[in-house]
Amino acid sequence: MSEKMKQLKGILGEVSDLNHATSVLGWDQQTYMPPMGAEARGQQLATLGKISHEKFTDEKVGHLIANLKEEFDGAGPDSDDAALLRVVERDYEKAVKVPASFVAEQSQVTSAAFEAWVEAKGKSDFSIFQPHLEKIVDLTRKYISFFPPADHPYDTLLDDYEPGMKTADVKKIFGDLRPKQVELIRRIKEAKQVKDSFLHKKYDEKKLWDFSEEVAKKYGYDFSRGRQDKVAHPFETAFSANDVRITTRFEPQNPMAMLFSTLHETGHALYEQGISLSYERTPLAHGGSLALHESQSRMWENLVGRSKSFWKYFLPRLKKIFPTQLKDVDLKSFYNAVNKVEPTFIRVNADEATYNLHIMLRLEIEIALVEGKVNIKDLPELWNTKMKDYLGITPPNDAQGVLQDVHWSYGAIGYFSTYALGNLVSAQLWEKINGDIPDLSEQISKGNFEALLSWLRTKVHIYGKKYEPQDLVQRITGSKIDATPYVNYLTNKYTDIYGL
Amino acid sequence: MSEKMKQLKGILGEVSDLNHATSVLGWDQQTYMPPMGAEARGQQLATLGKISHEKFTDEKVGHLIANLKEEFDGAGPDSDDAALLRVVERDYEKAVKVPASFVAEQSQVTSAAFEAWVEAKGKSDFSIFQPHLEKIVDLTRKYISFFPPADHPYDTLLDDYEPGMKTADVKKIFGDLRPKQVELIRRIKEAKQVKDSFLHKKYDEKKLWDFSEEVAKKYGYDFSRGRQDKVAHPFETAFSANDVRITTRFEPQNPMAMLFSTLHETGHALYEQGISLSYERTPLAHGGSLALHESQSRMWENLVGRSKSFWKYFLPRLKKIFPTQLKDVDLKSFYNAVNKVEPTFIRVNADEATYNLHIMLRLEIEIALVEGKVNIKDLPELWNTKMKDYLGITPPNDAQGVLQDVHWSYGAIGYFSTYALGNLVSAQLWEKINGDIPDLSEQISKGNFEALLSWLRTKVHIYGKKYEPQDLVQRITGSKIDATPYVNYLTNKYTDIYGL
Repeated sequence: MSEKMKQLKGILGEVSDLNHATSVLGWDQQTYMPPMGAEARGQQLATLGKISHEKFTDEKVGHLIANLKEEFDGAGPDSDDAALLRVVERDYEKAVKVPASFVAEQSQVTSAAFEAWVEAKGKSDFSIFQPHLEKIVDLTRKYISFFPPADHPYDTLLDDYEPGMKTADVKKIFGDLRPKQVELIRRIKEAKQVKDSFLHKKYDEKKLWDFSEEVAKKYGYDFSRGRQDKVAHPFETAFSANDVRITTRFEPQNPMAMLFSTLHETGHALYEQGISLSYERTPLAHGGSLALHESQSRMWENLVGRSKSFWKYFLPRLKKIFPTQLKDVDLKSFYNAVNKVEPTFIRVNADEATYNLHIMLRLEIEIALVEGKVNIKDLPELWNTKMKDYLGITPPNDAQGVLQDVHWSYGAIGYFSTYALGNLVSAQLWEKINGDIPDLSEQISKGNFEALLSWLRTKVHIYGKKYEPQDLVQRITGSKIDATPYVNYLTNKYTDIYGL
Repeated sequence: MSEKMKQLKGILGEVSDLNHATSVLGWDQQTYMPPMGAEARGQQLATLGKISHEKFTDEKVGHLIANLKEEFDGAGPDSDDAALLRVVERDYEKAVKVPASFVAEQSQVTSAAFEAWVEAKGKSDFSIFQPHLEKIVDLTRKYISFFPPADHPYDTLLDDYEPGMKTADVKKIFGDLRPKQVELIRRIKEAKQVKDSFLHKKYDEKKLWDFSEEVAKKYGYDFSRGRQDKVAHPFETAFSANDVRITTRFEPQNPMAMLFSTLHETGHALYEQGISLSYERTPLAHGGSLALHESQSRMWENLVGRSKSFWKYFLPRLKKIFPTQLKDVDLKSFYNAVNKVEPTFIRVNADEATYNLHIMLRLEIEIALVEGKVNIKDLPELWNTKMKDYLGITPPNDAQGVLQDVHWSYGAIGYFSTYALGNLVSAQLWEKINGDIPDLSEQISKGNFEALLSWLRTKVHIYGKKYEPQDLVQRITGSKIDATPYVNYLTNKYTDIYGL
């Protein structure tokens, strides 16, 4: 390694350590921190964010990048160091446009906003969160102003989560997808409905927690390099490929949500645990993009975790744990029940057919926020109107409406569409995987996930951020992000379940 | 506030945030971190330590101190800012002598050493810890070499934990104390022994945990600004006066140890929760010294928690929780049992009469290590020989011998004597408190700890590090650290229990 590359990696290593420390503090804030600790935590996070930003945007870094670009001029697309340089240059060019004072302010604001969101959601009172969200939207528009004008101001935000993706692209993909999903939901609505009352009986939290972890282990999640804790809003976070944590929650009225939430976060965690250790302490040591990340979580949650093969293996085990609740429930009934389509209020618990409509709703609101076309105080009403339009239901309160998601409290505007894109990518990959592993469904029905995980490890996980997300999808599947496989997957699945 | 003081406080605030982030990462490492996370955590801690050290030892800080000293020349002893300046100057003069590379190395070494200690203790195999301890002792001697020669090389270490204290002072205090404690133990040994078999029955961990937290709350520990978790080696840690956490452990063969450990750490936590909020993010926002800190933990653990008044109130409650285990146990028998004197292997569980001998043993070993008069590999044998000499017993294995304490794995050599000094201070304060609150024991027997806590808050806690520890003790009690009140306290207590 050249002396200059060593210097650059030294700085990136410290920045990575600071960012991982920030993640530990964030994890603690959401899992175990006592409520009064929030103010000091906000200051600690602000200071870490400021120092990390200062270190990364130091002009030394700019000089090193410029020098190293010559050195790596002509390096092939498979050079790790060339890929690192490309990612670092991209991040650097973005970061230098954002003043350190802004980063510190944002960190302070979002830390307070998160606490306010927790309280607001608990009391189902949007007015508690409103002034914080106003600050966040102001900061977001200020953030956009640091960058050269894009085709659409929302492009600047989107690009942070999904490099290279444009608002127009997303609108186009969603535009194609929406009528097909709406038509599918219409046909399902007219079909004979599925029974799932046995899923809403009383299930013991601890037993379900243990079962969820049992499945996560079977999937290949390594608990010597991870753990699961309880939170208000589940997430996955990594402090190294050797310390990748997941979180979950229990909702008594919807107990199975805990299981699927664990499987979802396990999908994220498998990705992070599979990234090449040679990328540790560099910006390559993360998932390729949010859509790619979500393709992994949704695959393990839905394409695997809600498949008939999966339950062929796991239902007998679950029936042993909950013999009364699942008495006389056979495979077909159980499979149908966990795939029941029904418009509901909560995105994370939405079935696969309605899920993307939750995303489209949020995308439209976010774009309106960025364009300044909506007053924050009107959000609950706007939310409810759109829910009525898209899903035909009206949330009974803000906790089940506009306050349900944590993202805005983090300042993460521009994030949501990656969830829907992730669904699409998961189906694209799934098509390819089933071509490469013809007996995959049989393997899954025997509780064997090794070939699947190994395929994902070698084709996706190990590369971290090495390839641009769209390029990686193209490399693996032969095309860029495309809605067709997902629509086919949904149509086949629900044709079987609802006899369409 | 002058512009220069504002600048200084700005830097100190960032250093404090970094140090608190370090503490959060340390807390996580000992409570919840998955085992494979240790290597990355070591690097994160090293980076935070390095940056904090760089920021604090920046020559800007030196200039600000020099300028501000003029400004505060003549400020009285009660000026907070003058006290801050004194503490900062002292810390700065020390810190600039230690190179950043040393700090980073120490952080890496101790992070690995802690993991090795956990494993070594688990397997009761000193050889696993030995190479790590060798590195730590080398680093400790290197550390001493950065400072001007003191009367004794160990002085340099001691001064970090107990400002102003000399090895000769400690030897003198312990020299006076030792024959008196040995004589007391001899007389107890000849008396009729106390029965405590009912304390070693099977007690449910969860119920005892809840009872411990119930007492901690009664003491005044504010759980909205704190929490308790489970660890291998209990400690208290603070990330702000509003986020002060304690930890405990359960030993099935000695269940009550969990209760007293919680009360001990609660004593530390009450101190940190009571420090003036105006000191937040400055070096004044810590306990005055380790001996002062220990005076608080030992007071709430022993002078309160093992008093007859305390159990007059709490025994009926405990008997309700454990009716079978404590059937027919009256106050006097219970009081005697929790104060039973018996030489044992584990310091933290030692009774008040033998405790200080555990400290003297460690002090002698540490001094020998610093003087280079002992080989690390001979430590288990040396430990066992001294245990035999002082307490007449020989540990059956290293886990119950030389490996029992975590401190050396942190690189904390010079720390132990403060535990014994803390005992002495606790009794000095206790004498004074009982003069000021004549009915204290009656209040305690009614479960009322408010007057006691309020006394400690206003005389000790609120000041943080404002006063030099010996000065504060003098201010409150009229004399410097002195063994007499402690010897009197022990003699009175055991005369009653053992009918000496």
